[in-house]
Amino acid sequence: MTKRKVEVCFSPELIHLHELENKIVVVVDIFRATSTMIAALGNGVASITPVADLETCRAMQSEGYVIAGERNGQTAEGFMLGNSPLAYLDGAYANQKIAMTTTNGTLAIEKSKPGSKQVLIGAFVNLRATAYYLTSQNDDVLIHCAGWKGKFNLEDSLYAGALVSLLEENFEFDCDGAIAMKGLYESNKSDLAGFLAQASHAKRLQNHQIEADIDFCLSLDLFSIIGKLQGQELVAQVIETK
Amino acid sequence: MTKRKVEVCFSPELIHLHELENKIVVVVDIFRATSTMIAALGNGVASITPVADLETCRAMQSEGYVIAGERNGQTAEGFMLGNSPLAYLDGAYANQKIAMTTTNGTLAIEKSKPGSKQVLIGAFVNLRATAYYLTSQNDDVLIHCAGWKGKFNLEDSLYAGALVSLLEENFEFDCDGAIAMKGLYESNKSDLAGFLAQASHAKRLQNHQIEADIDFCLSLDLFSIIGKLQGQELVAQVIETK
Repeated sequence: MTKRKVEVCFSPELIHLHELENKIVVVVDIFRATSTMIAALGNGVASITPVADLETCRAMQSEGYVIAGERNGQTAEGFMLGNSPLAYLDGAYANQKIAMTTTNGTLAIEKSKPGSKQVLIGAFVNLRATAYYLTSQNDDVLIHCAGWKGKFNLEDSLYAGALVSLLEENFEFDCDGAIAMKGLYESNKSDLAGFLAQASHAKRLQNHQIEADIDFCLSLDLFSIIGKLQGQELVAQVIETK
Repeated sequence: MTKRKVEVCFSPELIHLHELENKIVVVVDIFRATSTMIAALGNGVASITPVADLETCRAMQSEGYVIAGERNGQTAEGFMLGNSPLAYLDGAYANQKIAMTTTNGTLAIEKSKPGSKQVLIGAFVNLRATAYYLTSQNDDVLIHCAGWKGKFNLEDSLYAGALVSLLEENFEFDCDGAIAMKGLYESNKSDLAGFLAQASHAKRLQNHQIEADIDFCLSLDLFSIIGKLQGQELVAQVIETK
């Protein structure tokens, strides 16, 4: 039997070089979009609608959405929520519909749609659930890192390495990005936070005094759900990993 | 004193996201363009003119150039030389002018010109000489990986990591690509060939039965020269590293 394939794309600026056709695309934006989305879905929100621009997102408030918006790491003006995963804990927005716009994550989700079979969002906080789900499917996987303004970033790429590492048994990879990041993850997994503290984005976030967000985003397997795009909405699907 | 900066770009497809202004850009295409260029310059060729397309390159034969052309790892039809560094050893083409076109390397060199202060080509075979030269200058450095058809590749990126590792003392880097590749290089430098044997491009080259080329391209510090773009020509400059 041919093994399924897993590949890694480091930036939405490179996604045109990859075939999306019939693949499951896992979008990752660790600091903080997809970590926050999984935290929200894991805390019972009904759905999250990713929105490209602030204006469209703002307008959705009158349609009953809780609106969440961030630009350059800060809550956007007039928005109820920024991009902190902590805001959703303890079921604070359970059963509500969220409209969310973020700097890099929304763009990556949008660019993952054409031709792909499914779009998931992934984060360290649901790493194992996502790996388990992908293994249970029959499709090739493309991990799409949101990056930072088009550039490679360390935290999204290390997540890609972590996911490749878990998929390795059932997937093959003829992809240098996957080889590199699996290697880097495995060398640094005992102190992921320490290694990532060097990353430019982590430094930016530290300047915003949101260390608690960083710690949260680097926590493994807090949620046994996957985040899955259905139409325009991200919804949760509970994964039984036992 | 502010330290100079070093940053890494993984692909010509991402170079538009980087400022080239006043920087020294080091272009790297380990398998095999820049390794071959350094081998040629280190063996006394007068100059190498990188050319984008096969036709232009072919036409230069009548102007007295030795023409070298490769597409997808094979010598192009009608060309005297392909892309093997071994062809230039023992001064086989000493004092001759070479016109060379390659799949990825020439494009990366072309895209490194606008605004930059200098364009160098780099390879493992002259790693230390390049690091020594860069340290002796006063400019920020951008390492521009040629990649493989626009995608990240392992060998060019590991070279970037190796160069960052040597520059670390005198340069700072707020660049996730630099952090990642320095980490990956330092974890794997004791068996670079073994680690790179997994890489997709190395596998492609193995299929072409050119293991001797691969071994050569992964050899450290065979030449004490840098390769430097002067006008349209790459020329050698001897570096005294002692």
